Amino acid sequence: MASPRRSAITSVVPDLIATATLLVDTSGQGFTEFTGEAARFVAEAGAGHGTLQLFLRHTSASLVIQENADPDVQTDLVTALDRIAPTDAGWVHDVEGPDDMPAHVKAMVNGVSLQVPVIDGKLALGTWQGLYLAEHRARPHRREVVLQFIGNRR
Amino acid sequence: MASPRRSAITSVVPDLIATATLLVDTSGQGFTEFTGEAARFVAEAGAGHGTLQLFLRHTSASLVIQENADPDVQTDLVTALDRIAPTDAGWVHDVEGPDDMPAHVKAMVNGVSLQVPVIDGKLALGTWQGLYLAEHRARPHRREVVLQFIGNRR
Amino acid sequence: MASPRRSAITSVVPDLIATATLLVDTSGQGFTEFTGEAARFVAEAGAGHGTLQLFLRHTSASLVIQENADPDVQTDLVTALDRIAPTDAGWVHDVEGPDDMPAHVKAMVNGVSLQVPVIDGKLALGTWQGLYLAEHRARPHRREVVLQFIGNRR
Repeated sequence: MASPRRSAITSVVPDLIATATLLVDTSGQGFTEFTGEAARFVAEAGAGHGTLQLFLRHTSASLVIQENADPDVQTDLVTALDRIAPTDAGWVHDVEGPDDMPAHVKAMVNGVSLQVPVIDGKLALGTWQGLYLAEHRARPHRREVVLQFIGNRR
Repeated sequence: MASPRRSAITSVVPDLIATATLLVDTSGQGFTEFTGEAARFVAEAGAGHGTLQLFLRHTSASLVIQENADPDVQTDLVTALDRIAPTDAGWVHDVEGPDDMPAHVKAMVNGVSLQVPVIDGKLALGTWQGLYLAEHRARPHRREVVLQFIGNRR
Repeated sequence: MASPRRSAITSVVPDLIATATLLVDTSGQGFTEFTGEAARFVAEAGAGHGTLQLFLRHTSASLVIQENADPDVQTDLVTALDRIAPTDAGWVHDVEGPDDMPAHVKAMVNGVSLQVPVIDGKLALGTWQGLYLAEHRARPHRREVVLQFIGNRR
């Protein structure tokens, strides 16, 4: 097995932090893609090289980077999360409905903060990567994502 | 379902990276909140707009953003982590006690690095979000968290 | 239990964003350490104080910070991930082989983005922390990691 090989280093001087908020309406448990909105934010902010920081302001939904090709993958990801946190596991916290505590567990495991590098003004996602808001509650919710670019201007 | 709507973009020039270390004493397995300490750090650093980066320097504890209202949620999160990594799963690595390998698994799944946006000098957490250090070992430990603000001065 | 104690705050002015890409060849399911390569990147970039942002451009592998001492820990982490996402769970998405959908689940749970603080030109990892690329596919793959330092020059 070869050792890791590294590219040359590109250096710039940071002169921009751009912040905005995105509202995403979900239709209940499942994945909502927002890669296009994130890419538009990076373009409109005038970003060059740097990082896009993403943060979800909720405790029963999460941010996920996953495959954007076959929708069956999302079905299976939902199933996998239900295996980790089933509705009928005898949770103590059940006043907000049987889907609430499993939603908190899924949000903890997936997390609510992410970052994606921005190179030459573009999100440096891999070919099969998309940005998703994963809704873990059964009913539709309005969710708020904070987008922040840190880097230099294009 | 409406498409995502974005706010206007706020842009500033970064001129501050502030770093400090926080020591947190845990009382064994469970969650210790440190939202107040993180907010004080952001205030004392003179932070304006930017991001608070958090990093835990350990492999058997983790950082979690979760509900700060009903303490039963934390009880259930501990139960959920025990389901994912039970003590009696026949782990190969058992020289440091039966709680050690499950602690590594829980730390891997939750993660040790997070970021929270800072807007107008305040942590932009959601209403129900708190910052927690999750201790996964049975006994009390002293844990070290690195706090770093990247952004502009207020 | 004592309340958290914080160190003094160190402040610098950010003047460097350095970006490079690392190629890592994996030998199939398991962990490949690249702490040394990340440390070399930070040194060659001339980093002082700031943060190293890491991003993996794939959906069936993940980035993990875990114990670097006993290799048995890695064996058990692989076992733990197989418990979370077994091959035979009846996944809908199975066209790319029985190890593909479990690999997506493991990548979602572990995540593909991380950050590590850099203090005085060094990665501020804890004593037992190493940076790993976790391969979740059965066969060897070439994986791409984006490394980005944001901070000041040494």
